[in-house]
Amino acid sequence: MSLPAWNEGPRRAAILDYLARVTAEGGPDYVPPAERIAVFDNDGTLWCEKPAYIQALFILDRLREQAASDPDLAGRAVVKALLAGDLAAAAKEGTDAVAEVLLDTHSGLTTEEFERAVERWMESFRHPGFDVPFTGLVYAPMIELLDLLRGHGFRVFVVTGGGVDFVRVVGSELYGVHADDVVGSAVEVDFERRDGQVVLVRKAALAGSPNEGPPKVASIHAHIGRRPIVAVGNSAGDREMLEFAHTGARPSLCVVVNHDDAEREYAYGGEAVTNPNAEPILTTAERFGWTVVSMRDDWSRVFA
Amino acid sequence: MSLPAWNEGPRRAAILDYLARVTAEGGPDYVPPAERIAVFDNDGTLWCEKPAYIQALFILDRLREQAASDPDLAGRAVVKALLAGDLAAAAKEGTDAVAEVLLDTHSGLTTEEFERAVERWMESFRHPGFDVPFTGLVYAPMIELLDLLRGHGFRVFVVTGGGVDFVRVVGSELYGVHADDVVGSAVEVDFERRDGQVVLVRKAALAGSPNEGPPKVASIHAHIGRRPIVAVGNSAGDREMLEFAHTGARPSLCVVVNHDDAEREYAYGGEAVTNPNAEPILTTAERFGWTVVSMRDDWSRVFA
Repeated sequence: MSLPAWNEGPRRAAILDYLARVTAEGGPDYVPPAERIAVFDNDGTLWCEKPAYIQALFILDRLREQAASDPDLAGRAVVKALLAGDLAAAAKEGTDAVAEVLLDTHSGLTTEEFERAVERWMESFRHPGFDVPFTGLVYAPMIELLDLLRGHGFRVFVVTGGGVDFVRVVGSELYGVHADDVVGSAVEVDFERRDGQVVLVRKAALAGSPNEGPPKVASIHAHIGRRPIVAVGNSAGDREMLEFAHTGARPSLCVVVNHDDAEREYAYGGEAVTNPNAEPILTTAERFGWTVVSMRDDWSRVFA
Repeated sequence: MSLPAWNEGPRRAAILDYLARVTAEGGPDYVPPAERIAVFDNDGTLWCEKPAYIQALFILDRLREQAASDPDLAGRAVVKALLAGDLAAAAKEGTDAVAEVLLDTHSGLTTEEFERAVERWMESFRHPGFDVPFTGLVYAPMIELLDLLRGHGFRVFVVTGGGVDFVRVVGSELYGVHADDVVGSAVEVDFERRDGQVVLVRKAALAGSPNEGPPKVASIHAHIGRRPIVAVGNSAGDREMLEFAHTGARPSLCVVVNHDDAEREYAYGGEAVTNPNAEPILTTAERFGWTVVSMRDDWSRVFA
C-alpha cells in the first residue's frame, strides 16, 4: 500500500489523486517527467525542529567548546546568554552581535573540514527531548512521500532556510538526496591554495539573504532552474515557495504540515518562527486551498 | 567501441584508463559513485565559441531589434560600435557602458519569458561560419565523453562562464543535462506577483561575479557541493576549476581542449579570451601534467 504511515482520509487521498493525475499519459493534467520537480522545506517539514533547530544545537556545542578555551569570548554578554539558552537576553545584545558570534563558530574552516565537523557531531548527537540519534527525528510519512514522488518520476529537492552545507551532510543519509539537491542559506567563502591544494575557506558572513520567504523562490530558480509543481512546507518562510508552485501553469500540489501533536511530537501549529509579523501559514493555506496535513490525525506513525 | 570519434593514441587511452581505474571495485583508485562528479566548461569545450560566443550573438540580435524601435538607443556610440561588430570601439566606451547595454537587452522579462525568447531564437539561428543550426556546433567527441562518464556512474555538470539561464535551455537539448546541472553566471532577479502569479523578473545587473576563474570553484561548491574528480575546459577561466579537481584526495582526470584545427574548426590554441594577462591554459596544463586534447590529432570527427 502507498503511504502506509498516513491514515486514510482526504489528505492522503489528495496526494494519491494528484500523483495519479499528473502521471496519467494522455490525461488533461499530465505533466512530462522533466517538469516533475518537488521542493521540500527541511526543519519542521522533513524532521523535527523543536526544542530548537538541530543546526542551532550544533553551532551552540561548538560555541561552548570555543568559550571553554577563550575567556574573552566566554565573558561576552551575548555568548553567556546564548550558552545559557536565554534567547531573549541574547537578542537584547542585537541581531548583528548574535549573528557574528554564531557565524564565527566555523569560520576559517575549509568547506571539507566543515563537512567532517558536522559528520563527527552527528555521530554523538542525541535529541534533548526524545533521546534519539538524528536519524530518529525524521518524519516517516515524509520519507514515504519522497519515495512515492521519486517512484512517479519526480526529482526531489530540499529547500531549506538552514545552512546548505549542514543540511547536505544530513540530507544524503536521511533523505537520499545528493548534495546538489539541497538549496539553502550559505556563507561566503574565500578561494585559497593551502599547501598546494585548492580549498574554499568559510567566512563569518552570509552570502546573500537567509533562504526564507521570497529568497526561496529566487534560490529555486538559481539552483533548480524550473518552477516546482509540488511544494511542501510548514511555516511562513515557505509561503512564497508554495505560491510559486501554486501559481504555475501546471497542476500543483501544495502541502503544509500542521504541528498539532503534543503527544507524539510538539504542538505549535503554524507559528511563524522567524518572522512574528508574517501571516500564519495555516491562514495562508486556507485561503489558497492548500492541503493542510494534521500530524495528529493524518499520520499513523510520526518518526521513521 | 568506446569514444569512436576519438583517434587511438595517448589521450584517448588516458581517459579510458582513468575510467577503468576509478570504477574497479577493490582497486587502489576506486571512487564510490557518490563522488563521481564531472564538470565541463561550455564555450569552446562542449561547443564552438567562434567567431563569437553564441550567447553574444543572441544578445546582439536582441539589441538590434531594440535599436530599430528606439532611436535614442540606436544613436549611442556604444550601441553603434556593438552592432557594427567593432569590439575595440565598444570597449573605448568603457566596460560598464557595454555591460549595461548588454544586460539591459533582457531586463524586465520574467525568467520564464526569457527561456521562451532563447528557445525562439534558437529555432532560426544559423552559425555565421558553418551555416548550421546550433545543434551542429556541438563536439561529437565530447558528447561521447559525457555519455561514457554517465555509463561509468558519473554525474555530469556544465560549469560555464555564460549565462546560466541561456545555457540551461541549450543544455537540455544538446547535452542531456537537467536545468539544475548547469552552473553559470546569473543576473539579479526581483520577486514579483504579476496578475496573481509569482514570477521572477530579470534585472540589468549581474548577481555576484561572472562565473570565470576562482568563482567557478565557489559556484561548484555552492551548487554541486562536492569536489569534482573530472574537470574539462579550454581556457584560463577554467584553470582554478581544473586545479580544484586536480588537488583533491581522489585520483582526478583534468582535460584541456586545444583548438588547433583551422580546417575543421578554428585554430586559436589556449588563448585567454576574457583575461589577456592570465597564463595561457596550455602552459598551466603542461606544468600540472593535464591531458591536452588536440582537436586536429585526437578527434576523428569534430561536430556531432
